[in-house]
Amino acid sequence: MADQNKLVKEITSMDEDFAKWYTDVVKKAELASYSGVRGCMVIRPYGTALWENIRNDLDSRFKATGHENVMMPMFIPESLLQKEKDHVEGFAPEVAWVTHGGEEKLQERLCVRPTSETLFCDHYSEVIHSYKDLPKLYNQWCSVVRWEKTTRPFLRTMEFFWQEGHTMHETAEEAIEETERMLNVYADFCEQSLAIPVVKGKKTDKEKFAGAESTYTIEALMHDGKALQSGTSHYFGDGFSHAFNITFTGRENTIQYPHQTSWGMSSRIIGAIIMTHGDDNGLVLPPAVAPVQVVIVPIATHKPGVTEKAQELCERLQKGFRVKLDLSDNSAGWKFAEYEMKGVPLRLEIGPKDIEKNQCVLVRRDNREKSFVSLDSLEEEITAHLKALHDALYQKALDRREEMTYTVSNLDEMIENATNRPGFIKAMWCGELACEEKLKEVAGVTSRCIPFEQEAITDTCVCCGKPAKHMLYWGKAY
Amino acid sequence: MADQNKLVKEITSMDEDFAKWYTDVVKKAELASYSGVRGCMVIRPYGTALWENIRNDLDSRFKATGHENVMMPMFIPESLLQKEKDHVEGFAPEVAWVTHGGEEKLQERLCVRPTSETLFCDHYSEVIHSYKDLPKLYNQWCSVVRWEKTTRPFLRTMEFFWQEGHTMHETAEEAIEETERMLNVYADFCEQSLAIPVVKGKKTDKEKFAGAESTYTIEALMHDGKALQSGTSHYFGDGFSHAFNITFTGRENTIQYPHQTSWGMSSRIIGAIIMTHGDDNGLVLPPAVAPVQVVIVPIATHKPGVTEKAQELCERLQKGFRVKLDLSDNSAGWKFAEYEMKGVPLRLEIGPKDIEKNQCVLVRRDNREKSFVSLDSLEEEITAHLKALHDALYQKALDRREEMTYTVSNLDEMIENATNRPGFIKAMWCGELACEEKLKEVAGVTSRCIPFEQEAITDTCVCCGKPAKHMLYWGKAY
Repeated sequence: MADQNKLVKEITSMDEDFAKWYTDVVKKAELASYSGVRGCMVIRPYGTALWENIRNDLDSRFKATGHENVMMPMFIPESLLQKEKDHVEGFAPEVAWVTHGGEEKLQERLCVRPTSETLFCDHYSEVIHSYKDLPKLYNQWCSVVRWEKTTRPFLRTMEFFWQEGHTMHETAEEAIEETERMLNVYADFCEQSLAIPVVKGKKTDKEKFAGAESTYTIEALMHDGKALQSGTSHYFGDGFSHAFNITFTGRENTIQYPHQTSWGMSSRIIGAIIMTHGDDNGLVLPPAVAPVQVVIVPIATHKPGVTEKAQELCERLQKGFRVKLDLSDNSAGWKFAEYEMKGVPLRLEIGPKDIEKNQCVLVRRDNREKSFVSLDSLEEEITAHLKALHDALYQKALDRREEMTYTVSNLDEMIENATNRPGFIKAMWCGELACEEKLKEVAGVTSRCIPFEQEAITDTCVCCGKPAKHMLYWGKAY
Repeated sequence: MADQNKLVKEITSMDEDFAKWYTDVVKKAELASYSGVRGCMVIRPYGTALWENIRNDLDSRFKATGHENVMMPMFIPESLLQKEKDHVEGFAPEVAWVTHGGEEKLQERLCVRPTSETLFCDHYSEVIHSYKDLPKLYNQWCSVVRWEKTTRPFLRTMEFFWQEGHTMHETAEEAIEETERMLNVYADFCEQSLAIPVVKGKKTDKEKFAGAESTYTIEALMHDGKALQSGTSHYFGDGFSHAFNITFTGRENTIQYPHQTSWGMSSRIIGAIIMTHGDDNGLVLPPAVAPVQVVIVPIATHKPGVTEKAQELCERLQKGFRVKLDLSDNSAGWKFAEYEMKGVPLRLEIGPKDIEKNQCVLVRRDNREKSFVSLDSLEEEITAHLKALHDALYQKALDRREEMTYTVSNLDEMIENATNRPGFIKAMWCGELACEEKLKEVAGVTSRCIPFEQEAITDTCVCCGKPAKHMLYWGKAY
């Protein structure tokens, strides 16, 4: 077990230094490594497989709600980016500019897309003519670039991977419905596939997307009490339609402007998985997206029949699960530690004695509970344990969030809480930007969202004491 | 049928103007449209679905041969691109340069990747230490940018989509084996999934990839007699390993340099599908990658029970095929023409009389053959017709290629053929660059490949008359 201890010791504990723990896990679980390009990651095979599972799951949810994928250019000409005033103000300071093609200086600069509203609108202006062309429900999977000063793997990188949905609708009502529908798709995905509970709500005007009329968000609470915005959905009204001159002939034969949405979830969700479920032994992956759901570790492979039995089990289980059999010459202890680090949900151990008894040992990653399982009912047992593990991850995360959610009534309480107790803070707000700015200054918190589920804590704003309009979630955020 | 004629007339015939026919098909089949960004396409939902099917098919072939996906940065710092001399000379003149991030001028320019050998090598130098770390069998799906002066949808665009495999091996033999293995994967994919016959061979030194020791290629012949390089596989030796200082401790405990390959297939393969199988009614798609394999067109939907029966059939067939039911209020004739334009392999028509007889009408896209098919054996019939259609497409393309392949013995014959008869030209070559350059000048042909299947046409070079080393395929190419 010397090997195992060595491996385990190599990562910093969460309590000692959470940020260091996080980067240790990213590195040791072989999710990603730094590249020679400032602020950009190399996403390694294990991290890529995880992202592909996330993508496939989300993509099937998008298709089930009627969306189609497209592939847009990665460049945006400067003049196109400038067509919508708020949007360009929000994004121009943080884009990468292409100025030369080969030896030649370009007549017009191109930015590498930070987001693609402008490209979609340019295309929509060509393909939308009649109400019969609506709705347009498009999505694309790609990477985008934002010139960030400080970066952290998955959480904030110059280039990141995401999907961006861009839709156009006949009426404002339909567009708002779509905005809410896609927020629910994100929330369901987080809860059902990632075992991450989220708070659904609306962003304040200060925090909304550049150019949007309203932004909806799902917010998750990480292990260290910081919030992570995990997916957003925007309603644009017809602002871009006017800016890009997108019109259609309506049912009453009048010229109208369509109503727009966009929505995105990115590779930072991998950061959320790490910081929601991980522990001092490494990553813990929710079964629905784990690249390997079950690892088989044969014990005493020098004994006759063990390797063969393990191979037979692997072939059998591959019909229903993502399975890996490790036949390397590393010690069993080393393998246990390695797959714990990689967050593989279930481990099966099988040795000569197990074979005699027609059983194997099943170990759950989250609580390390061992059970002896008959080989006759292995598929059923694995299915049940994967489900139990998912449910346990979800419940644990939900319990932690509830424990770490505080309610405050006045500014002193807010400052006291923000200073001493990491987590979500629920407090009333008058609706004024000045109070948001002051709370950031004096308590270091930002508004996370105006949750759909409102509570009346007090009648007055936690900051200025004037009449309150909404209850908000506040916190420190990634 | 007025509608149908209108739609058909909208595309130029192949014989009238092949280039115009091609762009008409791209546009009318709604595969792609031009974007506001010079030289870049918008790949529309139908084109994206086609690319996704191509990607999924190829990806499963890569995984079956032991490869893993990764995701690398889209930028390459100038100093990294310059590390391998031949490579930078080949690519620097055609890259897009990022010089500014936000308002700030970068200290070092970044190019948008034209290909990623340098990024993979940078990463490999970090993760390869011992022979136990080899082979590394990585692939990535992404887009790359090359600053092209003239562009055509799918065939040549500034940004294009592709996969690039990059592998590292302990020995030269293993790397060469991999290079050949992946060429065969491409050839099998083209023949089995796309119904496109290809010639396998090696590129001459003039035509090989910048920095490679040797380049293998598959070449397909388009309807107009021009060749299209459809996939390439490169053997690099250990040149990049030396340039990037990638070393490993070998089995005998000595420091060694690994041997490298790369291989790629791109979205230009969609151009090959169009120009191999298409006809004057539009696209014809091979069933393995067609976004819609079977379209159901109900006839006389005002009659009771027709719509319901069509819906029932659609649900039933969706269990085994990619099926679309068109219930729009367009006329049946308009629908026939539309799905012919989009190249849907099979059309099912069902009306009141068919329902009475428990049958439907099945029409093949390629030859428009109609048959009446019992609803009881519909799945079997569809499976058989899809297979027959695939085989017919392949055979037709092969026959055409054979008809359009000529053998020449001397320079006059070469010029005469190249001038008057589009197609592949087989001719002997001495191995000298001067003859390749002269043939380009006087006959307008380039060497396509030195095919693995050699024939001895004559003993002397078609150009200079000196002793011949190889038989080559020559031609005009996209």
